Amino acid sequence: MKLLTLINAVLDARTSPLVVSAHCDLPCGVYDPAQARIDAQSVKACMEKYNASDDDAFKTRAIIVKEQRCEEVKHHLWVLWTDYFKPEHLTTYPNLHDLFWKASKTAGEAKKTNDVAVADRLLAEIEAIADIFWATKK
Amino acid sequence: MKLLTLINAVLDARTSPLVVSAHCDLPCGVYDPAQARIDAQSVKACMEKYNASDDDAFKTRAIIVKEQRCEEVKHHLWVLWTDYFKPEHLTTYPNLHDLFWKASKTAGEAKKTNDVAVADRLLAEIEAIADIFWATKK
Amino acid sequence: MKLLTLINAVLDARTSPLVVSAHCDLPCGVYDPAQARIDAQSVKACMEKYNASDDDAFKTRAIIVKEQRCEEVKHHLWVLWTDYFKPEHLTTYPNLHDLFWKASKTAGEAKKTNDVAVADRLLAEIEAIADIFWATKK
Amino acid sequence: MKLLTLINAVLDARTSPLVVSAHCDLPCGVYDPAQARIDAQSVKACMEKYNASDDDAFKTRAIIVKEQRCEEVKHHLWVLWTDYFKPEHLTTYPNLHDLFWKASKTAGEAKKTNDVAVADRLLAEIEAIADIFWATKK
Amino acid sequence: MKLLTLINAVLDARTSPLVVSAHCDLPCGVYDPAQARIDAQSVKACMEKYNASDDDAFKTRAIIVKEQRCEEVKHHLWVLWTDYFKPEHLTTYPNLHDLFWKASKTAGEAKKTNDVAVADRLLAEIEAIADIFWATKK
Amino acid sequence: MKLLTLINAVLDARTSPLVVSAHCDLPCGVYDPAQARIDAQSVKACMEKYNASDDDAFKTRAIIVKEQRCEEVKHHLWVLWTDYFKPEHLTTYPNLHDLFWKASKTAGEAKKTNDVAVADRLLAEIEAIADIFWATKK
Repeated sequence: MKLLTLINAVLDARTSPLVVSAHCDLPCGVYDPAQARIDAQSVKACMEKYNASDDDAFKTRAIIVKEQRCEEVKHHLWVLWTDYFKPEHLTTYPNLHDLFWKASKTAGEAKKTNDVAVADRLLAEIEAIADIFWATKK
Repeated sequence: MKLLTLINAVLDARTSPLVVSAHCDLPCGVYDPAQARIDAQSVKACMEKYNASDDDAFKTRAIIVKEQRCEEVKHHLWVLWTDYFKPEHLTTYPNLHDLFWKASKTAGEAKKTNDVAVADRLLAEIEAIADIFWATKK
Repeated sequence: MKLLTLINAVLDARTSPLVVSAHCDLPCGVYDPAQARIDAQSVKACMEKYNASDDDAFKTRAIIVKEQRCEEVKHHLWVLWTDYFKPEHLTTYPNLHDLFWKASKTAGEAKKTNDVAVADRLLAEIEAIADIFWATKK
Repeated sequence: MKLLTLINAVLDARTSPLVVSAHCDLPCGVYDPAQARIDAQSVKACMEKYNASDDDAFKTRAIIVKEQRCEEVKHHLWVLWTDYFKPEHLTTYPNLHDLFWKASKTAGEAKKTNDVAVADRLLAEIEAIADIFWATKK
Repeated sequence: MKLLTLINAVLDARTSPLVVSAHCDLPCGVYDPAQARIDAQSVKACMEKYNASDDDAFKTRAIIVKEQRCEEVKHHLWVLWTDYFKPEHLTTYPNLHDLFWKASKTAGEAKKTNDVAVADRLLAEIEAIADIFWATKK
Repeated sequence: MKLLTLINAVLDARTSPLVVSAHCDLPCGVYDPAQARIDAQSVKACMEKYNASDDDAFKTRAIIVKEQRCEEVKHHLWVLWTDYFKPEHLTTYPNLHDLFWKASKTAGEAKKTNDVAVADRLLAEIEAIADIFWATKK
């Protein structure tokens, strides 16, 4: 019972159909791969809740929410890739394009599955991007 | 010239008409007052750029972007207030409602002005909320 | 000064980039031409404020907000036209299609002008639709 | 059969993924708690339809639509709370913050359940807010 | 297995909660009934995939996506009807209003069913509109 | 006068704050680089209208609309890049990542300028992507 309440609380906060804030490279650090990571963590949580539940209505809500979170991960990745990274970054990190492409594809894959391993891969790919991001900020 | 490029880079990333990600209290910390703060910092930056510019088209873009960022600040604040905070928090922090109300109103005020002091007040109000938020996480 | 505050209050509340709620013909009366009317009244108010102001930043905001409100008027009209009205209504009110078409076009025209007469025409067209709507509810 | 048609008509009109119109305190009365009430009535209707149906696809649609309506209720409440109500209202109605907070939480709760009692509570809370709203308009 | 992958690929690309691009009558031909047709084809594909699947999670995703695509069909039709077509077109094509009204209603009906015949009817109605559209462009 | 009417007609249709339809690789050809091209043509038209006008309110509207169209171009490009193209395409077209990256950056640049040459470059970059897209469809 308490678990269900907790699960519901998680889902409730996340079903806003409203979407995706873009960011910028202000000195305040408005570009931040944490955005993509946070949504990817939510994707993972939705999968876990989905797998743990027997309640059809709840499972439907988990899918709705996961769908939205995956889309937000994609958007955050695209903004970082297009708006933050510059040609000079590509010289130092020639695999940058591929990293973003694969992470975006994994975010798409995460829509289609409740296999937590996919969410873990997504998180790892975002972390690899974050490592480069922060290295370029030094 | 270089300044204008920088200014434009700031604005460019931020004009997505797509809006506002909701969050949740997963263990991963998906509720995070940093969201509101980051957008508030962008509000402030838009004001500074607006004030520093003589270019009508640019100033128009600064207003468009600021309008969106203020709205996102409000949304992030509302989500925190409604979804994260619980009755027991109110007992410990009886001014919680008022803090959120005032910060939301300041975010609205920031739409109407390019006075950086309003953005600074907004940032301070968000920081006060963040202090309480993190205290409840201990 | 007080007028400006009032004007700003009007604009502030209306700049949400988030958009347009659909409605339905529940017994609770969720379809309601009042929606279109309310947004049309805001369109008119934006025009009046625009015309009364000398402040460039404020005028820009008035245009942004009016643009959104006109779009919402259109959406509310389309939903009423498509979802609420049924073939039997057309038999009784053969000019129904034309009423909606013209009102939608006027809403588009209101984006392009700050001539309050256009907003007044829009309000009159919505009222004509509302009269039919409520007649069909009897 | 006819019931199903009716049910579908209800759901059809409401699944716009597009969201939430903000309002203002124009003399025309653009702020109006009726907005939140109407969406709350739809929330209740979705629950009733969900409970009455045996069709999995239909039940899924009911959940999607209810999710959106609950979010709109929340948004309308937040706009009223932040944009319409002023400090002097709080003096007269010291429980205003709490009323809004509880109603917003109930709207969140309504996402998680198809218990019509929750929708009824939400409607009652919105009515209490509406009573205050109209009292302040006198 | 491969089929499921294909099906998932179809759904994945389409679940963006972000919505509906408007168009215009530039010489470049930005108004284009192809928009409504493409989304209607997706509606049909979603129905086919839904009918062919035994996987509850997949079927839920198919409904979510179809809901969005139907809404986009409606929006594209409304924009064409309101913004592109002019009074002189109505003189030549007096059934224009009715064509749009019926096609919009069919798009609504397609939300409620997985009967591919409804999608086929929708496609035919859109094609009839396209024929008129292109005739007016000559 | 007639020109102004035309210009207004162009802008009017394009100011929907609602955004961006995703696509898929159905046999019906739902992925289509024409989407990005059409929006890029609108971007160019907005620039031309902006440059030709002396009316402040109109110019503001042109900027608002261009902002939205640029964002849509970006979204359409990202969807094609992430969802349509597969690793085997990269083997044949090793510059694919770079093409998309540059086109996305040009779309961002087009927000900041009314220099038609930028829109022309954007259109050329999209055409290069379209050539590859259609080659992979053979």
